[in-house]
Amino acid sequence: MNIDVLLHPAEFKVRDFEGKVVVIIDVLRATTTILTAFANGCKRVIPVLTPEEAMEVKYTIIDACTLLGGERRGIKINGFDLGNSPSEYTREVVQGQNIVLTTTNGTKALRGVRGAGSIFIGALSNISALCRACHKVGEDIILVTSGRAGSFSLEDLVCAGMIVSKLRETSTYKETDAAFAAQLLFSHFKRDIKTALYTSEHGRYLCEIGFESDLEICAQVDTYDIVPFLANENINYSELNI
Amino acid sequence: MNIDVLLHPAEFKVRDFEGKVVVIIDVLRATTTILTAFANGCKRVIPVLTPEEAMEVKYTIIDACTLLGGERRGIKINGFDLGNSPSEYTREVVQGQNIVLTTTNGTKALRGVRGAGSIFIGALSNISALCRACHKVGEDIILVTSGRAGSFSLEDLVCAGMIVSKLRETSTYKETDAAFAAQLLFSHFKRDIKTALYTSEHGRYLCEIGFESDLEICAQVDTYDIVPFLANENINYSELNI
Repeated sequence: MNIDVLLHPAEFKVRDFEGKVVVIIDVLRATTTILTAFANGCKRVIPVLTPEEAMEVKYTIIDACTLLGGERRGIKINGFDLGNSPSEYTREVVQGQNIVLTTTNGTKALRGVRGAGSIFIGALSNISALCRACHKVGEDIILVTSGRAGSFSLEDLVCAGMIVSKLRETSTYKETDAAFAAQLLFSHFKRDIKTALYTSEHGRYLCEIGFESDLEICAQVDTYDIVPFLANENINYSELNI
Repeated sequence: MNIDVLLHPAEFKVRDFEGKVVVIIDVLRATTTILTAFANGCKRVIPVLTPEEAMEVKYTIIDACTLLGGERRGIKINGFDLGNSPSEYTREVVQGQNIVLTTTNGTKALRGVRGAGSIFIGALSNISALCRACHKVGEDIILVTSGRAGSFSLEDLVCAGMIVSKLRETSTYKETDAAFAAQLLFSHFKRDIKTALYTSEHGRYLCEIGFESDLEICAQVDTYDIVPFLANENINYSELNI
């Protein structure tokens, strides 16, 4: 099997995802937030590209239990129920809810992948469950780093490197140069993953605007034993027997 | 000043190069070959996208001293004078010649950059001269890794990391996540750059098709003290007083 890493959002247009296992990674913060929402009992997450689309989708859902979540430049969108901080997605707030989510990077990545066999949600906080799910499917894997405002992001590549490293502990994968580079980068931060988040441009920006505590949450490894997946433009979570 | 690294050819379409110093890197082998050609006295190099375009350009140049160079899948193009191996571009062959060059990755990168203030040719073999030229111009820098067949390539990012590392020895640059990652990768291979070339997908492919000796040439650091540059779709070399 092959394992590759998509380094930059611009690659969406030139990649073939057909039949592959795709993992969407946005450590800071969309995929960590999605994992937190599911761990706290949300019903489903609907990723959309714009705040306007979020409003439209909310009004097409005949379900009072629907929240709007999302950010622009890291800050909660005006009129929305929730921002993009995992700390907001508590059980009290999200249990039994549909969440329509629009973020700058992660939801774009979720909408950029077409034709994949499986699309999993990945972050540091579900590394082990994610690797079990990837093994179970047993197809070629593309780890998609969501980046930041159209640029490469360090923390996502470090997370991808951790996934590559963990997958190779139990199976043989043919890795591309990008997967190899991700692993090397991960091994540099192996003993202190948090430093990767604090070093990255996005991490430093989030600290500047008051979200330092989110870096602490997002740097935690294996907080959750779940793997939400995208199907029919909705993110769901069911027992995958992983 | 800022320093950034373009990791994937797909980024050409989403980047703003306006007024910046752009360094095109294709260690294996286009930029190493171009450097060798200039070191051995070639008059100019004209990068083109296709073999057909190379033929057309050759016949518009009213100069008998014009050679066609280039490769597809690493192999010399049928009917061309030269392939893409630096060992072919000897003084006996290239002195005083125009070279119309088409390669799979490097010449695409050269044609992908629009609006840059300066476009320099970089490889391991001219690192020090290149860094002096970048310092001299004193603008924001984008290091462009040419990649391989539309994919990221390890050896180009290691070379970019060496440039970032060297530039930061003498000046303060604000670096992006990509520039930071490149430096980390370079520091891993610092004591044995050659291993990066032999580890990379492109390096392994070139060994398979019989060009192992090219890896030895391309891994040499500071063989040449020259910095060719792209202007008006031609690569030239003149004394830059670097």
